[in-house]
Amino acid sequence: MKNILLVILDGLGDRPNKEFDNMTSLQASFRPNMNHLVSEGLGGILFPITPGIRAGSDTSHLSILGYNPVEVYTGRGPFEAMGLGMDVKPGDIAFRANFATIDENGIVTDRRAGRINSGTDKLASALRMNIDGVDFFVKEGVEHRAALVIRGDNLSDRVTDTDPHDLGRKPEIVKALDNEAAFSASVLNKFLAEAQKILGDHDVNLERIKNGLPPANVLLLRGPGKAPNLQPFHEKYNMKAAAISGIPMISGIAKLAGMDLLKVEGATGSLDSNFKNKFKAASRALKIYDFVLMNIKATDVAGHDGKPIEKKKAIESIDAALSDLDFKPEEAVICITGDHSTPCSVKDHSGDPVPILFNTSGILGNHIRFFDEVSCLKTGLNLRGLDVMPYLLQLSDRAEKYGA
Amino acid sequence: MKNILLVILDGLGDRPNKEFDNMTSLQASFRPNMNHLVSEGLGGILFPITPGIRAGSDTSHLSILGYNPVEVYTGRGPFEAMGLGMDVKPGDIAFRANFATIDENGIVTDRRAGRINSGTDKLASALRMNIDGVDFFVKEGVEHRAALVIRGDNLSDRVTDTDPHDLGRKPEIVKALDNEAAFSASVLNKFLAEAQKILGDHDVNLERIKNGLPPANVLLLRGPGKAPNLQPFHEKYNMKAAAISGIPMISGIAKLAGMDLLKVEGATGSLDSNFKNKFKAASRALKIYDFVLMNIKATDVAGHDGKPIEKKKAIESIDAALSDLDFKPEEAVICITGDHSTPCSVKDHSGDPVPILFNTSGILGNHIRFFDEVSCLKTGLNLRGLDVMPYLLQLSDRAEKYGA
Repeated sequence: MKNILLVILDGLGDRPNKEFDNMTSLQASFRPNMNHLVSEGLGGILFPITPGIRAGSDTSHLSILGYNPVEVYTGRGPFEAMGLGMDVKPGDIAFRANFATIDENGIVTDRRAGRINSGTDKLASALRMNIDGVDFFVKEGVEHRAALVIRGDNLSDRVTDTDPHDLGRKPEIVKALDNEAAFSASVLNKFLAEAQKILGDHDVNLERIKNGLPPANVLLLRGPGKAPNLQPFHEKYNMKAAAISGIPMISGIAKLAGMDLLKVEGATGSLDSNFKNKFKAASRALKIYDFVLMNIKATDVAGHDGKPIEKKKAIESIDAALSDLDFKPEEAVICITGDHSTPCSVKDHSGDPVPILFNTSGILGNHIRFFDEVSCLKTGLNLRGLDVMPYLLQLSDRAEKYGA
Repeated sequence: MKNILLVILDGLGDRPNKEFDNMTSLQASFRPNMNHLVSEGLGGILFPITPGIRAGSDTSHLSILGYNPVEVYTGRGPFEAMGLGMDVKPGDIAFRANFATIDENGIVTDRRAGRINSGTDKLASALRMNIDGVDFFVKEGVEHRAALVIRGDNLSDRVTDTDPHDLGRKPEIVKALDNEAAFSASVLNKFLAEAQKILGDHDVNLERIKNGLPPANVLLLRGPGKAPNLQPFHEKYNMKAAAISGIPMISGIAKLAGMDLLKVEGATGSLDSNFKNKFKAASRALKIYDFVLMNIKATDVAGHDGKPIEKKKAIESIDAALSDLDFKPEEAVICITGDHSTPCSVKDHSGDPVPILFNTSGILGNHIRFFDEVSCLKTGLNLRGLDVMPYLLQLSDRAEKYGA
């Protein structure tokens, strides 16, 4: 049996760029290690969900790890909360939240509290409370954005939003969508009333009013979702697993799947991340763990920024860092792919296929010379997200025979 | 956001032909426009349903438009009725029907009424009636073939055939397969009794008897199906849609999906159709509609006739007519494919994959030079019918992100 290293280069896929004479960032990059791995291994394309679907990083990682998002994805609430670095446990209910402004009659006058850009950390921590045995946690995000996680027994996500989505109206009260959600709606309404008092009196807001800025005196909730109870990865695949990820959302998913999270010095989740340290850490981890998931965010950041030259540079740095892997092809299977495309020309995720490579000793390969979208689109290997884990299991001599 | 033109060349796929030194009709054809579109775009293969399934035009068009035929296809009745140009509305029950001959004891002596080839239009219109609030519509087809559509409240397709399928037996009476179908069975039996009287006395049949021909004095029913209640296309995809189709069955499906039907001068649904007018009409339509579906039947006709030279000619005429498209790649996505293969050597539909191409500005392509079955089978793009709409949505910047 071999161990497995699954490297997900976030948003790896690209479309043609004028800067590179209509090549993708990956095609244009100097990537001798990736090219070597694919030419001695197997290359193809991957649709992270199914063809054409514009996957998020959350749904895509779930799918690639073998958790069908159609079955387990419970809406953005829990994943956005994880994305802010919140601890989200199975059964928790999470919401996307806005700090907003209401006037003295309780009417929403600014859904973004003037795009407040400081002090929300203090406001969020002031809202930590326990009501009727339920714990409430708020964490601030960029500007007015935040998330709410509630934890306790008998909670349900079958409740309505409070965000009126328009100005000139009061925030809605939380309503239960079925009988089992009555308790959740009740504690949420108590929390929101209490939160409104705390926010109204908070120094951050008194200061804002003094400066003529709209106070962040109410929390609007939307997109409730229950954190999924994923079958533990080690149970599903009989592999001890760890994750190396610089981005909280992916760390959150790994944690929900019961993986150990490994810290890497200099890993930032951005373009300046220390890729060498990440691959060194992965090599060490492969001596202890059967399965290591690594996410590298830099490629996605450059794609969202619409910067092909940055994306190419990131790929080249990652490729160079691959030299720091120190295991033999007899010891492990390596798979490198993306969770979706983030074309520089789109500055957001697209539904294009991403390239995927597998390399290990003795593999049945297809001898393509280059690892990139176009070369991989010319092979006959055409996988979907849920195919990746079975393929890795069989390459690592870990798959059970289906039948006799 | 871009608009979308989906061109379905009916029965496009072919198998090797001796006439072309074992090339397909498409391979053998002069098709500079299709080759240009694929070489600047993306080419691959499409299994309209799943690999190997011999799709009908009905199930295939449903699948490609994103309506899973496994869920919505309710048997041939409604689609054959649409194929005869009948107006079929959601909830209608439709049957395939035969005009047949019974003797004075009510025994079927000819299931095809001597392959009657004239006068069935008069017989069919004589059977228009309303019984117990249910409307009955009969439309003649080729020779003895016809269809029956019934419309009213509380109708069910859970009823049995009346066609005994053998000679020497009486037509069956309609039986209900469950309690809810009792009313339907009852009105159908009343209709058939009345129809038998009308047919027996009809001038067309008296004339046939005088000429020693078997009278078409009974209607045999089989294959009942309820016309599916398709989610309107504009609601499903948020696109205003129109269809250009020379064949009634496809027009019927487009109408069930709530698309507008556009008339094109000189469009015949056969080999002599005016392809140039169709592409000109499509170009005009794309200024008003977000999505235009075009079906061209000529390729299928040549395939069913087993005439590769005709099929090649049809493809060449269609390719030449593509020059009449007048939109820029920045404005629209074009997809050209088939709904199934109709190999000239088979003279019927096969389960082979059909080639598919996508072209628009900025697309991630795979630089194949030729648009044909074999070139496309060498790429890594391997789609199924239900993947087509998601792929078009993402290429036209219309897809919602699934996740974050």
